[in-house]
Amino acid sequence: MASTNLPLDDDRLWRDVMALAEITDPDRPYTRRSFSPLFLEGRAWLAKRLADAGLAVRIDAAGNLIGRLDGADPSLGVLAVGSHSDTVPSGGRFDGIAGLATGLEVVRSLRDAGVRLGHAIEIIDFLAEEPSEYSLSCVGSRGMVGALDAGMLDLTEPGGEKLREALRRVGGDPDRLAAARRHDIKAFLELHIEQGIVLESQSLDVGVVTSIVGIRRIEIVFEGAADHAGTTPMTLRHDALVAAANTVAAVRRIAERLAAEGPDYFVATVGILSVEPGASNVVPGRCWLVTDARATNSALIRRFVETLERDSAASAAAARVERRPLVTLSDGPPVACDPVLREALRRAAQELGLRETDLASGAGHDTAFMTRICPSAMIFVPCRNGKSHAPEEWAEREAIARGAAVVLQAIKALDRSSPTKH
Amino acid sequence: MASTNLPLDDDRLWRDVMALAEITDPDRPYTRRSFSPLFLEGRAWLAKRLADAGLAVRIDAAGNLIGRLDGADPSLGVLAVGSHSDTVPSGGRFDGIAGLATGLEVVRSLRDAGVRLGHAIEIIDFLAEEPSEYSLSCVGSRGMVGALDAGMLDLTEPGGEKLREALRRVGGDPDRLAAARRHDIKAFLELHIEQGIVLESQSLDVGVVTSIVGIRRIEIVFEGAADHAGTTPMTLRHDALVAAANTVAAVRRIAERLAAEGPDYFVATVGILSVEPGASNVVPGRCWLVTDARATNSALIRRFVETLERDSAASAAAARVERRPLVTLSDGPPVACDPVLREALRRAAQELGLRETDLASGAGHDTAFMTRICPSAMIFVPCRNGKSHAPEEWAEREAIARGAAVVLQAIKALDRSSPTKH
Repeated sequence: MASTNLPLDDDRLWRDVMALAEITDPDRPYTRRSFSPLFLEGRAWLAKRLADAGLAVRIDAAGNLIGRLDGADPSLGVLAVGSHSDTVPSGGRFDGIAGLATGLEVVRSLRDAGVRLGHAIEIIDFLAEEPSEYSLSCVGSRGMVGALDAGMLDLTEPGGEKLREALRRVGGDPDRLAAARRHDIKAFLELHIEQGIVLESQSLDVGVVTSIVGIRRIEIVFEGAADHAGTTPMTLRHDALVAAANTVAAVRRIAERLAAEGPDYFVATVGILSVEPGASNVVPGRCWLVTDARATNSALIRRFVETLERDSAASAAAARVERRPLVTLSDGPPVACDPVLREALRRAAQELGLRETDLASGAGHDTAFMTRICPSAMIFVPCRNGKSHAPEEWAEREAIARGAAVVLQAIKALDRSSPTKH
Repeated sequence: MASTNLPLDDDRLWRDVMALAEITDPDRPYTRRSFSPLFLEGRAWLAKRLADAGLAVRIDAAGNLIGRLDGADPSLGVLAVGSHSDTVPSGGRFDGIAGLATGLEVVRSLRDAGVRLGHAIEIIDFLAEEPSEYSLSCVGSRGMVGALDAGMLDLTEPGGEKLREALRRVGGDPDRLAAARRHDIKAFLELHIEQGIVLESQSLDVGVVTSIVGIRRIEIVFEGAADHAGTTPMTLRHDALVAAANTVAAVRRIAERLAAEGPDYFVATVGILSVEPGASNVVPGRCWLVTDARATNSALIRRFVETLERDSAASAAAARVERRPLVTLSDGPPVACDPVLREALRRAAQELGLRETDLASGAGHDTAFMTRICPSAMIFVPCRNGKSHAPEEWAEREAIARGAAVVLQAIKALDRSSPTKH
């Protein structure tokens, strides 16, 4: 029984989120790692819920779990709603799950209201969105857009199993990946918790995602000399940490400058810094750090790297240490969400009387891959203190319900207007 | 047979250094940890060498191994030469050992030359100079000066043994520590490798130590918020590493300024810095670092701490993180070497035609404790690249022989002039 005046049952939606959360490693809630027995247990639960909602359930060659309800007009193609059911270790109850529960509730609400869409509708649980033990994220969405290549399939987890074998184990078919590639999806929508505090701090209901950042990770190594901290005068030191510390300060300075330029989103972080030998009485001989730069405009990332290159070299020279050549660990481009779908989400929010804003996504999502094959967009709902990937991750029942209602409203509008690929 | 024109046998001296080095954990040369079976094996070898040189050997209540040769005039008291035979894990062949071999060679050279001193002479192998598994350094010299207290004796190694029990195990007597306290030593001299590059870089033979630095270690903890590195805008971050990095830069800046003031010696180092949670995609939520400041003048250390207090608080405020109150982990005062003994060492070097300089010791030594009970001084000899506490630690045979000859010459002069406590 719905407890709001939204056109869906927020209680039923919430129970789905909580039910999936209970399928967790009991020793480290909330953990449901992709490819694990618990993951398969979660998917079995989800498949049953999809079937109960009247959907035909299958697993595609890329290991995605898909529920489908045919539409009235087979020529119109598919409207899809999706996210993922896997978690990081000791993750939360909402990241990914809220999007799947939204898809389920959209289909059930349409059925309850006696609405049959012209388009087919599909609910997609993408395989392994979070970085898995095979060192790859977004396995299923990569597969669906033709971006899961042979090198990736050969990735091996510490126990020795290849991703290729793991994919087969969860019902996919690595030898027929082309079959997973879709050409019939007319619109893809994903609801996700924000994982940031913009919506919460501005008391907004939903964020319509403008684009998903590109991410470039770079490793920087400084090599000096591990001398005695007592007997080496300041003028004779080659202190790798001094160079690294000045580089951390430079990353912050450059990032603040680029972020302040607007309107593009830019952030950069040094989250890893390691000091060798790491003793209080030894001058640091070697430091390595990893910078993570994200922007909705790749020109900003290029400018960041150019400035970082110069500033880190200057920090090394000032500390009389060597800076190794910068190593790019990963480099994904930013992608824009579809403007027609963004407008549909914005209008839906307004029709429901909700407070919305445009927002860039600073995190990667399956949607970033889906933009390669179809118009795609995302909606964010507020999460408490912006905390995610942690057991304290929390989104209010009403917050998820409002976002799901926006998706439902947008799906109905899109079905009427038959969006096409731009 | 001496291969130099120095008044001692450099070959015999070198063979002692190399022989003691061979008593090592074979898997990680050069390791002879205090209180270990290898340490006792090394001491048994040393006791035999002392006895062979005509010395009476005993272990005092503080666990120091002492060889003694009475002098012609019992009223004159003792001239002592000492250092330590224990090593750090994977340490070197010279740190401590060179000083003991020097003592041995001084006694043998006097005997070979038919010289009998008026003073008694003692060679002292201080117990556990290096930080031991009981988290204490300079155990034996503390005991000899009455600075080994009950709290220290209760220190426990990871296996559960108290220092009190370990002391008894190596022949000391924790219940009679007062007996170890000496009042009869008229002069104490220690030869040591420099563990720095001042002598080597200026092609000098010996350094006459002016004073031994005081060391203050301080722990600084910054606490921010471990937010998502993608979804947290620069303006909303509480990045603990940014505050820590600016503090590392401040430590360097303050240290360079204080060191440049002269004539006092000052160095400061951040050798430990740890970042939590330490993932590339998470803004650092917590950082802790340890600063190690050393000076021959405690006023400089006070000024360092005052400035550090201010600068680290400012760094925390700028990064919007909390800085915990500074915690002093250890605080030892600087001590001056005895001016009469310094002059004796300087003159001895000049008489031998050696190039000497005044030099502060940036490392701690047993001599720092001995200054509390008797006139004490140190002499440094060059070590290659300043490397110490590592297997590649190296001092040339001639370098040690020159330093030992200075000690021999100074002992002879001191015996003639009967130094007294200042």
